Amino acid sequence: MTAPVAGHSALSNDDVRAVSPALANYTRDTIVGDLWNRPGLSPRDRSVVTVAALIARAQTIGMSHYFNLALENGVKPAEIAEIITHLAFYSGWSNAFFAVQVVKDIFAERDIGAEQLPQEPVQLLRLDEASENQRASAVQANFGEVSQGAVDYTRDVLFRDLWLRPDLAPRDRSLITVAALVASGQVAQITYHLNRAMDNGLTQAEASEMLAHLAFYTGWPCVFSAMPVVKDVFADRNK
Amino acid sequence: MTAPVAGHSALSNDDVRAVSPALANYTRDTIVGDLWNRPGLSPRDRSVVTVAALIARAQTIGMSHYFNLALENGVKPAEIAEIITHLAFYSGWSNAFFAVQVVKDIFAERDIGAEQLPQEPVQLLRLDEASENQRASAVQANFGEVSQGAVDYTRDVLFRDLWLRPDLAPRDRSLITVAALVASGQVAQITYHLNRAMDNGLTQAEASEMLAHLAFYTGWPCVFSAMPVVKDVFADRNK
Amino acid sequence: MTAPVAGHSALSNDDVRAVSPALANYTRDTIVGDLWNRPGLSPRDRSVVTVAALIARAQTIGMSHYFNLALENGVKPAEIAEIITHLAFYSGWSNAFFAVQVVKDIFAERDIGAEQLPQEPVQLLRLDEASENQRASAVQANFGEVSQGAVDYTRDVLFRDLWLRPDLAPRDRSLITVAALVASGQVAQITYHLNRAMDNGLTQAEASEMLAHLAFYTGWPCVFSAMPVVKDVFADRNK
Repeated sequence: MTAPVAGHSALSNDDVRAVSPALANYTRDTIVGDLWNRPGLSPRDRSVVTVAALIARAQTIGMSHYFNLALENGVKPAEIAEIITHLAFYSGWSNAFFAVQVVKDIFAERDIGAEQLPQEPVQLLRLDEASENQRASAVQANFGEVSQGAVDYTRDVLFRDLWLRPDLAPRDRSLITVAALVASGQVAQITYHLNRAMDNGLTQAEASEMLAHLAFYTGWPCVFSAMPVVKDVFADRNK
Repeated sequence: MTAPVAGHSALSNDDVRAVSPALANYTRDTIVGDLWNRPGLSPRDRSVVTVAALIARAQTIGMSHYFNLALENGVKPAEIAEIITHLAFYSGWSNAFFAVQVVKDIFAERDIGAEQLPQEPVQLLRLDEASENQRASAVQANFGEVSQGAVDYTRDVLFRDLWLRPDLAPRDRSLITVAALVASGQVAQITYHLNRAMDNGLTQAEASEMLAHLAFYTGWPCVFSAMPVVKDVFADRNK
Repeated sequence: MTAPVAGHSALSNDDVRAVSPALANYTRDTIVGDLWNRPGLSPRDRSVVTVAALIARAQTIGMSHYFNLALENGVKPAEIAEIITHLAFYSGWSNAFFAVQVVKDIFAERDIGAEQLPQEPVQLLRLDEASENQRASAVQANFGEVSQGAVDYTRDVLFRDLWLRPDLAPRDRSLITVAALVASGQVAQITYHLNRAMDNGLTQAEASEMLAHLAFYTGWPCVFSAMPVVKDVFADRNK
């Protein structure tokens, strides 16, 4: 495991130690030595969750290290392209652009060219019309008179296009969406998206461990604010 | 319409395409080609809303492009000075300073000098004493014992000074305040400020379209968290 | 008092004035001239609260100025090391690393070396077992089945290690925790941590003035969203 502060990071381990030996030790012992080796969530999924949290919080300082680590942990370049594109919609356009600024250099250094990225136009996954119509009707009834524009974009661009793009599995789209919601304190949307994530194959054990992982990258309060909502989702599904 | 990633932006369209052709296409087709040309909100107002969102989220990467676009869309230099000053109070001092760092270079490049900025001291707009006294009394009763200092600054610096500065219309101050609240997930304050915005002349159609616009710049979750609050404000005003 | 925009800051007073003379005046008159000289919170505590808010919001633009000011106001290098380490857990790892990037240069310029920082391993403060067991049991009962990993780290790394580190007083750890919660809009955690802060010696007058101070550094909405929660804490303790 590459140390989080080594390699492509803007900060060396010595930089951290020069300010706080304790922080350097926690990074080495608790995060690198322990957290990333825990069962319950694969290193590949930890990488996906971590870059999602960094994008959601525009944490440019960690991006170079963790995008490189993601590639080393088996996240494909095409998946990174889709993670950034997906989170443009779920974290804001500039958040995605901050990531582009870092990843364009990583792709260049690693000779990752257009042939490894999703070629436009892609063949979309098949839509589950019944389920999407149900979602769209509920949102239309609830918010159509609040912002028809937002409701229309949600249906046409998000659920009939973005979510159907084939180079990132629906389970992974859900995983980064939930991670981004936790990371930005948007607890109100967690119920829908965590249920969707688990419908798409995320296990309860993985969701639990994702919270432990995110605590370090988003700070404890984001995770503890999400806990009661996650608890209700688990309880409802286990009835 | 200048493309969001061209010109003064830190990222070129090719940079974005090198990481995600899809993100480049969404930017070109959905944001530049569609969103900015929709009726319901003028390009000038879209610029005002966009820079407010960028300031509220400290999104420095988009600032150079969108402040330049704002000037091209008719937002006056004095209005930009007031937007930044207003959001120092509503988004935090450093958020304003991040914007200053970008805008000082833009003003220098465009030879925008002190003569185009509000000259101190300005002649304040007339205060509606009755309405302000009502607001101040309610806040004093509610929060005086929590933080008399915060309550005093709110009255003296915000409502008897900042909001009365003449170089940004009250309707625009309200517009950027609401945009900043949505952009930072501060839904609890939306009810008061959206009502104030509409009292100051913002139409319901403009508020609706502002939400569709913000979805791209703040991410979907911020807008969907704001929707129920906006819905209640609309419903109360349409009774 | 050093002016917030002078010295080590990335922005000069003239830079601010070139964009908004009003913002330069508010900075000089309201923040430097008034806010920092108010009774109720010492300059040292204002510095602690300010750097906590900047770390919690990753506001790198103000960090150089305010970390230097903190040292000048009597915050010890070892305390700064602990503030950054503590907030790694409460604001996210990258937030701490953004601060490290700034503070490593400040420590180098001021010849602050390892001998002024907490030497590992430190002798931990004595744990109040009864109180911690009560906290741990409540969290275990509430969230153990949601994320046992997060619950375990909370007990073992936070409350049986981080909070017991000796180079930052428990009262100051609580102060920066509450400031970070306000600064990041995490109101749900304020009740527990403000009570803990006041148990650790923070006075109600200091907590009140902290809110007035934070209004400028986090923006008004963060403070007004925290007000009702703080009000309830005060009321409960004054019964």
